Amino acid sequence: MLEFFQLQTIDEVLAHIQRFPPLKVETVPLDAAWNRVLAADMAAPADVPEFDRACMDGYAVRARDTFGASPGSPAWLTISGEVAMGQVAEQTLGPGQAQRLATGGMLPPGADAVVMVEYTQELGDQTIEVYRSVAPLENVVQRGEDVKAGTVLLTAGTRLRPQDIGLLAALGVAAVPVRRRPRVAVVATGDEIVPITATPQPGQMRDANSYALAAQIRAGGGEPHLLGIIPDELEAWQATMQAALANADLLLLSGGSSVGTRDLAVEAISSFADAEILVHGVAISPGKPTILATIAGKPLFGLPGHPVSAMVVMDILVQPLMARLLGLAGPEPPWRRTVTARLSRNLASAPGREEFIRVRLRLEGDILWADPVLGKSGLISTMVKADGLTRIPRHTEGLEQGEAVQVWLFA
Amino acid sequence: MLEFFQLQTIDEVLAHIQRFPPLKVETVPLDAAWNRVLAADMAAPADVPEFDRACMDGYAVRARDTFGASPGSPAWLTISGEVAMGQVAEQTLGPGQAQRLATGGMLPPGADAVVMVEYTQELGDQTIEVYRSVAPLENVVQRGEDVKAGTVLLTAGTRLRPQDIGLLAALGVAAVPVRRRPRVAVVATGDEIVPITATPQPGQMRDANSYALAAQIRAGGGEPHLLGIIPDELEAWQATMQAALANADLLLLSGGSSVGTRDLAVEAISSFADAEILVHGVAISPGKPTILATIAGKPLFGLPGHPVSAMVVMDILVQPLMARLLGLAGPEPPWRRTVTARLSRNLASAPGREEFIRVRLRLEGDILWADPVLGKSGLISTMVKADGLTRIPRHTEGLEQGEAVQVWLFA
Repeated sequence: MLEFFQLQTIDEVLAHIQRFPPLKVETVPLDAAWNRVLAADMAAPADVPEFDRACMDGYAVRARDTFGASPGSPAWLTISGEVAMGQVAEQTLGPGQAQRLATGGMLPPGADAVVMVEYTQELGDQTIEVYRSVAPLENVVQRGEDVKAGTVLLTAGTRLRPQDIGLLAALGVAAVPVRRRPRVAVVATGDEIVPITATPQPGQMRDANSYALAAQIRAGGGEPHLLGIIPDELEAWQATMQAALANADLLLLSGGSSVGTRDLAVEAISSFADAEILVHGVAISPGKPTILATIAGKPLFGLPGHPVSAMVVMDILVQPLMARLLGLAGPEPPWRRTVTARLSRNLASAPGREEFIRVRLRLEGDILWADPVLGKSGLISTMVKADGLTRIPRHTEGLEQGEAVQVWLFA
Repeated sequence: MLEFFQLQTIDEVLAHIQRFPPLKVETVPLDAAWNRVLAADMAAPADVPEFDRACMDGYAVRARDTFGASPGSPAWLTISGEVAMGQVAEQTLGPGQAQRLATGGMLPPGADAVVMVEYTQELGDQTIEVYRSVAPLENVVQRGEDVKAGTVLLTAGTRLRPQDIGLLAALGVAAVPVRRRPRVAVVATGDEIVPITATPQPGQMRDANSYALAAQIRAGGGEPHLLGIIPDELEAWQATMQAALANADLLLLSGGSSVGTRDLAVEAISSFADAEILVHGVAISPGKPTILATIAGKPLFGLPGHPVSAMVVMDILVQPLMARLLGLAGPEPPWRRTVTARLSRNLASAPGREEFIRVRLRLEGDILWADPVLGKSGLISTMVKADGLTRIPRHTEGLEQGEAVQVWLFA
């Protein structure tokens, strides 16, 4: 009979992952920081903006000079000057005066509001009519209104979005401390596996998994290193693992889904002095024959050989490890990658394991249907046809047609 | 009074975008093809797999030899050999015989099913007991079961996901035809704008927009080229636009939100012989002072200077243009980037324009709330605090507290 040490649950595997610390911090130029994970809290060194500025084109005024103004009874103001963009507005604004300025221009001393140009009319060079009153601070961005000095808007563990990059630029952060991207070595194993450029002979298969995994690694913020294909021989495994562990932060051995390969994986891992097998078999389907080990403090996953199984294990177990190495602050909020849909047919399941079902989404009127994509876990085409995964929990016997299910969308 | 040629609707702007054809095709190695847009339909050149293979570890058998087998009444089969991984299974399987094989092994001639090793017991070297019957084709992946020769599973216009990369690998596609990434030149304009490494003097602001826009360009699959900051002078604009248009597929002029800059943009664009202004003002808020033009067949957007306005226009109008240049097959399905949430307060709106409201999402029990993030469109911090946008349609006067709204999530 096939032996596993002891099947572990997803939560048990995720608990093991906590032993691996985040990677070191590196500093990257701001224009390379998008989608990287911030490694420090970023406090604003100064107010943004550092001066009161107009956020409309028009005239800097004293608000009280416009009170009561209307098209029928305009206020008359004297144009006492113009604020040049990018310059200090030095000329104080007196009562009954207005100074021309454009969006972004500095408010002159004495002014407390901006009248939009739309509500004014010039009468010659010296005078304007104002057709609408403004309140104090209207059409003004006050000093520190965007960010006050000392405020921390971005904290360590944040994956930087475009607006976060923009904020860092506004703060003058030209070099950003981020976690190093995990270097993930991928080794394909199996005597039947040939490079993708080869024409497989009968009995042989192309190395599809390395490429799918590499793309998943990129999607998760890592840097894949494909180390090629090794035969099912202990010495080849040991040598490749040794070399990979010298450079990589995480090692993925792809293709250990047959009994012989699994035994070889255990033997190869155990032959390292400082190795520990943490997980050997997970209570999920597909993906049961998954190994998690540590060698010299570095994590290693032995992934099943079936492409669907390997990709599901990547999403469910390896991506959380990558997130850990990246120092990400927490899991993605549920609304980011999950949608609710109605299952279009019954699904049976064996209790005792979490089952992940590939589904294709289909919008019919207002109803979003999840159509299960059935097929063996050896068929990568089923992943291509699917939009995401839904889960049959461990202690249920299946899901019913019409039931609302959560669908986890593929990246 | 401020003049726009004629405000256009979002749909009208999107219609103009159709005039720009997709970019040329280039070929990239498969391991660089993730997230690129496929430029041709990919037909399978051969069956995958090209032979019947085991998808479990066990024994190749003739299914009918196992019929009726049970733990109480096992079938006895003679081990007539073993299928080596990656080799042609040449030895024909006769009646009453079994051949050992592992997952991925080729089914020998004469065999039509695989009995899982879990349901067998070896009795010496020559014989196995089988405790369960298998049906013909059980635990077998048939020739062409994953992909049949000639099948097109990936069509032109698909953004390649990890599983799509895996499928291409299985098909032996080592070099992939994809659309060239749009090269997008970004020019920041404005006398008040200083580089992010500078300490702004009173009246000056750091160039936050170029960096936020660059990250949005990357998120949309483009390649940003930051051309720096130019002053509000016609000759500087003309020279920079000329240089940018020589190399870029799309030019973004950032910062034309003041009346003076807008006039300058129109003047600069119109000074090119083969220029046409397609849009000058869009019925959206924020983002009204947006310009879309074409010069020598290349598209140019004049973006508002307020960071929120610029980012919203990027998402709503520029990303669809990028998608067009990339040859993407269609818009993202609504369930990919949109979630439904309940608005946590009333929102008023002026009819006649589409209004986009920044919202922060908050899960409270089962209810997902959308909290509007209020604040002027000059405040980039409001984008940092928000998770997405919700829309007040053009012909409504607002949204009510508790109303279900669609929230478009930020990338």
